[in-house]
Amino acid sequence: MKLATIRTAGGTRAVQLAEVGGAAVHLDLGYDDLGAWLAAGSPAAAPGARTLPVDGADFAPVVPTPSKVLCVGHNYTDHIQEMGRELPSYPTLFPKFADSLIGANDDIVKPAESDALDWEVELVVVIGSAVRRATAAQAQAAIAGFTVMNDISVRDWQFRTVEWTQGKIWDSSTPVGPYLVTPDELPGGVRPSLAVTTVVDGAVMQRDDTGTLLFDPVQLVEYISTVIRLNPGDLIATGTPAGVGHAREPAVYLAPGQRVVTTVDGVGTCTNLVVEKA
Amino acid sequence: MKLATIRTAGGTRAVQLAEVGGAAVHLDLGYDDLGAWLAAGSPAAAPGARTLPVDGADFAPVVPTPSKVLCVGHNYTDHIQEMGRELPSYPTLFPKFADSLIGANDDIVKPAESDALDWEVELVVVIGSAVRRATAAQAQAAIAGFTVMNDISVRDWQFRTVEWTQGKIWDSSTPVGPYLVTPDELPGGVRPSLAVTTVVDGAVMQRDDTGTLLFDPVQLVEYISTVIRLNPGDLIATGTPAGVGHAREPAVYLAPGQRVVTTVDGVGTCTNLVVEKA
Repeated sequence: MKLATIRTAGGTRAVQLAEVGGAAVHLDLGYDDLGAWLAAGSPAAAPGARTLPVDGADFAPVVPTPSKVLCVGHNYTDHIQEMGRELPSYPTLFPKFADSLIGANDDIVKPAESDALDWEVELVVVIGSAVRRATAAQAQAAIAGFTVMNDISVRDWQFRTVEWTQGKIWDSSTPVGPYLVTPDELPGGVRPSLAVTTVVDGAVMQRDDTGTLLFDPVQLVEYISTVIRLNPGDLIATGTPAGVGHAREPAVYLAPGQRVVTTVDGVGTCTNLVVEKA
Repeated sequence: MKLATIRTAGGTRAVQLAEVGGAAVHLDLGYDDLGAWLAAGSPAAAPGARTLPVDGADFAPVVPTPSKVLCVGHNYTDHIQEMGRELPSYPTLFPKFADSLIGANDDIVKPAESDALDWEVELVVVIGSAVRRATAAQAQAAIAGFTVMNDISVRDWQFRTVEWTQGKIWDSSTPVGPYLVTPDELPGGVRPSLAVTTVVDGAVMQRDDTGTLLFDPVQLVEYISTVIRLNPGDLIATGTPAGVGHAREPAVYLAPGQRVVTTVDGVGTCTNLVVEKA
């Protein structure tokens, strides 16, 4: 299944991508967003549910108000090496908040306070059911599916102090979506092997495969749920591979007018125009 | 005004400490919790509002589900020095999540996964109205008041990686409350000068004054709101002074059976028994 949260004139709606009479449609699942739908136990669409057009769909963040967004640093071997670090024994975790998220095709507004806006393509785990101190089997069962994030990072603020938080949580900065894709649709299921890429104005900046993650999605759910409960709709961004702008020599950052395309093959693509703050 | 969120048989209620006929009572404000009350614009209690007893009141986290909790590190000069660091140019920020919070008098459950549970008394700013890129005047107006937090830290997990997050967000670990106290009740108002202390089993472990904060509450609201919007009910923990257990030689950590008392004079006290995980 492919699921999304779509903006409509009457507010957001949780939808499922479906085929009706040979045409793709968005089937209204009866909930305001995928977070509410997951919290309700992911019920099937009602018979005769209304449909919304796929063409021109306006994607909200796939879960607009997760109770937590945890991101993983240092999780692809080559990105660890480009940053000059050793392979870690534990996942490095940092936060985002719901207010940091935007839709898969929304504009990325460059803050006036920084000229060091950077990209990070990431495979994201979407939690489907509540877990704490999950075993591997429980962790696996708690994964509703996957989506795509461009973990936009404000590098100068990220490195102002030893903690990255203030460079990672900028308001309305971080595309996530467009679809939540269930594991049965992916090679490798809950431990998928998928190409990930970032393309900026046509130039490939990042390319790797989620099969090379040091800590895979199931291990991350086990680890994080040891620390704190995970709730339906919570998001775990699994880290980014080599090729970020900040690690290049000279460093390269996103500028207004550029188009950044982050893709996880089989899961989806975020396409975002960078714009100047109005 | 002193305000709280109280657990009752019928769920939590937002209340105001009041005097009726010479006796202290909790006046029901008509909302489920202070987060909802602040979001509604902090309306006065309805005439004839019901009262709840103060004696035996069961305090929930003062705001049970803030959209964000941001904590500040390195904000008291002496604590910076005990950790061997230089005075910073910027606040260091790290997160907690709503699921990390407990009530002012709840038990602190020591996780089986760590023997390095530590205390950190903190003055906490409670946001009263939405702000982004606040000026000093706007920041000041956005402060609903203050409360107390014991920023419980799981030190071994905190220092597993360069990012502290995983040692700071443990589920149901962090007392916050009991009351939200409005600035008009405090010497110094929105930049209060108040003694802060931590006492463990009768021994004073931390003692300082919020007047020595490097970044004061107004500056913190300005700084953080540059990065991300602040919503009614959001919490900013302003940092802890010298005297944490981890910085002692030898290090001292909290053990089951101990009672930890964190106080900000004029704001309130959290009193918590440390217990073994059942």
